[in-house]
Parts: sequence; structure tokens; C-alpha cells
Amino acid sequence: MAGGAGSRFWPMSTEDNPKQFIDVLGTGRTLIQMTYDRFGGLCPAENVWVVTSKAYQAKVHEQLPEIPIGNILLEPCRRNTAPCIAYVCWRIKNANPRANIVITPSDHVVRDVKLFKRSIRECMAFTAETDSIVTLGIRPTRPETGYGYIEADLSFSSSREKNIFRVDSFREKPDLELARQYVAKNNYFWNAGIFVWSVQTVVNAFRVYQPEMARKFEALSPYFGTDAEQEHVDAVYAGLEPISVDYAIMEKAEEIFVYQASFDWSDVGTWGSLKKQIPNDSYGNAVVGNVDLYETNNCIIHCAGNKKVVVQGLDGYIVAEKDGRLMICKLSEEQRIKLFHK
Amino acid sequence: MAGGAGSRFWPMSTEDNPKQFIDVLGTGRTLIQMTYDRFGGLCPAENVWVVTSKAYQAKVHEQLPEIPIGNILLEPCRRNTAPCIAYVCWRIKNANPRANIVITPSDHVVRDVKLFKRSIRECMAFTAETDSIVTLGIRPTRPETGYGYIEADLSFSSSREKNIFRVDSFREKPDLELARQYVAKNNYFWNAGIFVWSVQTVVNAFRVYQPEMARKFEALSPYFGTDAEQEHVDAVYAGLEPISVDYAIMEKAEEIFVYQASFDWSDVGTWGSLKKQIPNDSYGNAVVGNVDLYETNNCIIHCAGNKKVVVQGLDGYIVAEKDGRLMICKLSEEQRIKLFHK
Repeated sequence: MAGGAGSRFWPMSTEDNPKQFIDVLGTGRTLIQMTYDRFGGLCPAENVWVVTSKAYQAKVHEQLPEIPIGNILLEPCRRNTAPCIAYVCWRIKNANPRANIVITPSDHVVRDVKLFKRSIRECMAFTAETDSIVTLGIRPTRPETGYGYIEADLSFSSSREKNIFRVDSFREKPDLELARQYVAKNNYFWNAGIFVWSVQTVVNAFRVYQPEMARKFEALSPYFGTDAEQEHVDAVYAGLEPISVDYAIMEKAEEIFVYQASFDWSDVGTWGSLKKQIPNDSYGNAVVGNVDLYETNNCIIHCAGNKKVVVQGLDGYIVAEKDGRLMICKLSEEQRIKLFHK
Repeated sequence: MAGGAGSRFWPMSTEDNPKQFIDVLGTGRTLIQMTYDRFGGLCPAENVWVVTSKAYQAKVHEQLPEIPIGNILLEPCRRNTAPCIAYVCWRIKNANPRANIVITPSDHVVRDVKLFKRSIRECMAFTAETDSIVTLGIRPTRPETGYGYIEADLSFSSSREKNIFRVDSFREKPDLELARQYVAKNNYFWNAGIFVWSVQTVVNAFRVYQPEMARKFEALSPYFGTDAEQEHVDAVYAGLEPISVDYAIMEKAEEIFVYQASFDWSDVGTWGSLKKQIPNDSYGNAVVGNVDLYETNNCIIHCAGNKKVVVQGLDGYIVAEKDGRLMICKLSEEQRIKLFHK
């Protein structure tokens, strides 16, 4: 899934060039490239599919030239995650009705790739043999209010896989007090938005819980892979209900499980969380770019390109520069960034 | 005089594009253009001469297309102000041995242009009739340690012009204590580096006080205005003594006067002094560029072009952005800027 607009990371991320297409960590690879890399050895390139906006087709193709261009599916408009997932799953069903599918956002960060691969393999082994939906749950390390949570029934572990438990409930983003209660228990996990299921399970779930959406994609199936695909997709897409897969399917489905993942994961949804993903210097600064610091502490400084940047005397700020656009903002005020560049 | 490098204003000003060629005040005109504009009505364009580095010839021509390109004199290397002034004055002597000359830096700011013109007219009326050198002295408004001072003998006023007094001495940049003493008296003025004198007076002064330099320019005179001028200037220039006109002439000359100017003047030599030249908002911020401020006070924010800049939560800082180069620095630390971009 690579259709997001990343407006919380202005000016690094813009509508024209959102976060997933940016080397936010300064590693030389963009987030979507790092996501692709994480599946190396798990999934051959020709089985990787990307759903994105039409405006980003060229960008995806440029950044992931390994993927067949026909595997880049184009949404004519944003309709949240359920239509996006239905589209790609029906499309894959057309190609291989026995496929086992991992759904993942393209703009998250996982540092331990080896552990990630092992986890995905375990999930896929499980969904290959059962009609289950598996969601990846991350053990919380702090009372984060920016994530949804999954409540697991730890007494009900799968007999096949020790890390997989039945889901009791999905919980929306909590307030701080509730988040503290979740973290204090051992059966609450962050919902990473990564789902593993067989194509048959997806299609059945949509047929049961989103019958109208299922019918529409069923009707589109004859055009998949033909020259008429885009035209027919464009004709129906705006009429699809904009709904998240969590509401549309996960919260309603019965055979739903959580994989207790222990790798370090972040949706890097804020500058503060990005700061945690970049090695900090001994003064607590996370720096991407050609930056010289003087008397500066606890800042995240992200400057595109190799142009020289000098920062003197700041403590606890975000400094982000791209193409002459610049934002300086206290880290404590980062929730206001979306409003700053309207 | 337009050969300076403006290194204290990085990244706004760079060796490639120093301060005099920049619209530092955000008025739509660069400092050299504003300097040219100040002489409108005083001096026709064909009588305006610019001495600059070879590297800046195209820039001067582009910014001042009114001036004949042959009036842009090119120094092959920087040799301080005395050689620069000798060159242009000998060059003008060749064209008009009875010329009356105003020497001015190209990167200073004067806000009351009308009063400036009246002052220059009064100086020129005086030097047209006498063999005097007149320097412009600005009544100090604060104990500035960044300027040289002129001590005047107020009892010895010219009989022709009530604002012109004999100079007692030139004083180098003082420390704060001495600057306070100067300001407390009424006969100390800031040395604005603007000189008015006839071409004959200049040439005589160089012949008396800098005979070697005078001989060299005398020897160059046959080539002035010919195709061989640059070649011969290039051959001697590096061998000229790099010395300021203050040391070379002013401090030695006898018939030297100061015009007590009452217009507001600044050499805008620091970000702090530039901040004073730009209208401040009610929170004490001086802003050039497309800048949105939130909870920001007492800052100077200078961003080239029309790219959007957002600053939240700063007090007492310089923020300067140009072509992706960025500097953030406390105003109190601005003396260190030269070191920041080595």
C-alpha cells in the first residue's frame, strides 16, 4: 500500500513526493525500497504488487524497477485501505487463486529484517494451512497514543504456532491513561497494519462482511490484466465506500489471530518517532544531511541533498529543509505541523 | 566599490553572490541597485563607475544595465580600498580631468534618500570650489564598536557650508567603553566610508602620500579606455600595496573635512544591523521571504525566493536560507558565523 500523502512530514514530505518515496532515514534507500528489501527471499519480485495513486506510478516504477509495471495498481482516488486491499487481492486471485498474501504499508520502519522475515514466514505457514487472518501485533514499549491496539487471548494459542493467539478485540487509538493500562497488561499489542492471509480467506471475508464491495470487484475481474482494466477500475472506484480494512473486516471477522512480533517496528508517523529510528549523537540529535551542529541538543534535523546546514544553539527542535522549503518547530509542538502548511 | 565578499551573511551571501548583489531588505532592489538609485538626479548613468572583481562583472551589468559596460572596472584581485579608488579616479581623470567624485561602498543602506541627496549636493558644492577632501560622518545613535569614528573640530567650521567641519583625527573601531565616551561627546561621528573630492584633489593626495601607487596608475593611463587596459591593469594590480584609503590618504592628509550627516545610515555589516534596517513586526521579528511565524520573537528570518518557510517557537535567532543552504544561529552568537561555513 503506497498511496499515502504523508502530510505530517512537511516539508520533507509533500503531496507530490510523500514519505514512502523518501530516504527519511538517510540510508540511501527510500521507505518503499526498504519495505521491498524486507521481503527479499520471501517473495519473488514478480509476485510483489503495489497499490498507489496514479500520480505516483512513475515514482514507484523508478524506485522499484524490479517489479513488473503491470503489478503497480493505480487508484484513481483515495478510498482508505479496504478498497485498496480488495482490489489487489481480487487482482492476485485472477493470477493465482491459491496465493498466500502479506499486506503491508510501504512507509513503516523495521530494523531487524532477519527477525521480520522469520515472523512473516511463521505467519504464512499458518495461513497456508488454515482459513485464518493473521495480524501482526508489536509488543508495546511505551504508552503510545498514536497507534491502535490489539487485545489478544493469550490462553488461546494456536496449536500450530506458539506466537499466534486469537484476537479478543481491536482497540482504537487510546488516550494516555488507557494506553498506560494497555501497556501494563501483557496481552495488548500495537496494530502494525500488516496482515497475512490466503487469497481465498480475503475474498471470503469481503463476501461475508463487505458484500457490495466484493460484488464490484467480482464484476471487475474479467477486465483484470487487459487494456480495459484501468478504465473499468476508474469507473467504479469513486463509488466504493472509503473504509479501513480494520472496520470493514478485522473487527467483524471470527477466525482472526495476532502474531506476537518481537521486532522493533515504527510507523514513523511523527518527527518524534522518526528521531527514534535514526541513530542519535551523544547530544541526543538525529541528523540526516550535511549538517554542522554547535551547542545543539535533542533535535531532529533533516535536510535533503548535500547542501550545507549550520545549526547553533537549539534544544528540542525539528529542523527540516527541502528544496528551499523550511520548517523549524519545537518537537513538543509537532502535532500542529499539518496546520502549518495548509 | 562593489568587490566585497560578504562572508558574514552566509548563506544569504556567498563568495559567488555577495551581499551587494542581494535584495537583503526584501524591497525588490539589491543593495548595489539601491546605491545606484540614491544617486538618481545627482549623477547621470554614464558618469557612474563601478569597481569590482572580474567574477562579478556580469552581475553588475545585469543589475545595473543603465551603466555603460566600459564603466565597470575589474580588479584581478582584492587590494583593499586605496588601489580601488586610485584606479577609478585615474580612469575618470582620463575622461574628465575636472570631475567631482563621490566614492561610496555599494552595500550600505540609507533610508532617507532625499536627505542623502541634499547632503551629497552640499559636499560636492564644497569640493567643486576647494581642494578639500570631505568624508561623510554620521551622528552616532549608540556606542557601536563595529564602526570607525571621525573626531571633528566643531569650532572650525567651513565658512561656505555650516555642516562641514575640519577633521581632528580618524579613530579605529573602539572597544565598548571608548565607544561610549565617543557617543557622549558631540564631535565624534561614524565614518561611513563615503568620500567626496575632485579628481585633482585625489590625484594630488595619492601623489603626495602614496607616490609609488600614483606612479603606477600614471603609467597605466595611456592604456585606459583601450583594448589593452585590462591586460596592463592585471599586470600591475597584484603588486599594489593592499591598504585602505583611510590609512593611505585620510589619516595623512591635511585639507580634510567631515560633513555632519543626519540621515540614518548603516553598513549592514551584521545580521543584527540588518535586522534594524527591516521593519520589525510587533513581536520584534524582521522577516524577508514567504515566512509564517508562530510564537516567535526577536528573530531575523531571511529566506530567498518565494518558497514557504514556517518557524515556530524561536526567540532571538537568525534563520537564513538560500538555495537549500541553511543557517540557524542565536543573534548573540553572530560574530561566529564566518567560522561556521569555512
